[in-house]
Amino acid sequence: MSELKSRDVMPEPTLSRLPWYLAYVSMLRSKGVGHVSSTQISKEIDVDASRIAKDLSFLNVKGKTRIGYDVSELERELVDFLGFKIVHNAIIAGVGSLGAALIRDSGLSRYGLDIVAGFDISPAVIGTEICGVPVYDINRVAEVRPMVDAEIGIIAVPVDRAQTVADMMIDAGVKALWNFTPFRIRASRDVVIQDTSIYAHLAVMYNRLQSRNVKSNGR
Amino acid sequence: MSELKSRDVMPEPTLSRLPWYLAYVSMLRSKGVGHVSSTQISKEIDVDASRIAKDLSFLNVKGKTRIGYDVSELERELVDFLGFKIVHNAIIAGVGSLGAALIRDSGLSRYGLDIVAGFDISPAVIGTEICGVPVYDINRVAEVRPMVDAEIGIIAVPVDRAQTVADMMIDAGVKALWNFTPFRIRASRDVVIQDTSIYAHLAVMYNRLQSRNVKSNGR
Repeated sequence: MSELKSRDVMPEPTLSRLPWYLAYVSMLRSKGVGHVSSTQISKEIDVDASRIAKDLSFLNVKGKTRIGYDVSELERELVDFLGFKIVHNAIIAGVGSLGAALIRDSGLSRYGLDIVAGFDISPAVIGTEICGVPVYDINRVAEVRPMVDAEIGIIAVPVDRAQTVADMMIDAGVKALWNFTPFRIRASRDVVIQDTSIYAHLAVMYNRLQSRNVKSNGR
Repeated sequence: MSELKSRDVMPEPTLSRLPWYLAYVSMLRSKGVGHVSSTQISKEIDVDASRIAKDLSFLNVKGKTRIGYDVSELERELVDFLGFKIVHNAIIAGVGSLGAALIRDSGLSRYGLDIVAGFDISPAVIGTEICGVPVYDINRVAEVRPMVDAEIGIIAVPVDRAQTVADMMIDAGVKALWNFTPFRIRASRDVVIQDTSIYAHLAVMYNRLQSRNVKSNGR
């Protein structure tokens, strides 16, 4: 039982489902709902009730028979567990189209991510600010990173620069890379790499959309 | 063999890896490299060479013994297969922080996605334009959607509005939803739903980062 409570052994699929539960219970709380059962969550979220109960057993909450989970308590536990209440400083390499968009997205700070410095190679943007975030020459990352105390490095550079920039960030002391390029970044095992290739998701969506269209036309 | 060539039976994990290969071969092509073997790709991409060969067997390309794949041909086939060369019109609901960022991200159009109209509930933005994309009242989606011929609807609204807005988009004729909220949208089976919850990825990254830190401190 005790290992089930340990944060670092939670399987990634469970972890990925927790934000869904959080989104739903936050909505319930804003509507003034007091309690919710795993069966109710299951109906809304389209995940088996037994799996939900198992997922939530990793948290420090107990559902009551016939009443379910206390909504506010469950929301608080989920936010805590997911790390959204802790401020994580991050630096970002590449303040072009996507990079600047991420800096401007205030949603990230609501989920605990604070982008504190940007880096680029373009003289046109070096020395400027985007929403109050200063943009430095990428060659200064080893000097600036420790000053802003950022453990997370976001990669939003063109794909052919991804590995070089990742190496520079790791040398500068970054512990985790959030990679928005479709490039498979290589790094030593002690560096966390989180890929969020939104363009890969696009490809999956196009493909499924085309399959549906082919099927519908074939009927 | 013939079913291996059919686009709609490709397993999703294979499909998700194709953009990695594309990113790598595009870089090779820009460097003037003529041929590449699955073993070479494997070294760069950190995927087994046999898996790469199997993945690429879904495409209309043949590697030659000892020479490998023709880089330009492989790049072209990947771009074609992934649908990045076809223009897919999309509408977006929610032009707040994240929504406006997606409209401004010119990277999307390079991957075949053209956001042609935005929708919101805020009078402050309705009637304005973001990078030339007009913003309409969300209540006009059923009227505007057919005019702009968009099959894809992007959901970038607050989480408690996600389902309502998804329903409105589907009623208006959208065939695929690209959902950026952590809400699990329900829809009939013939609607494609692609979840890209960047905040869920954040949670996974925080968790892995914390586990690494705990481990390092314990050494």
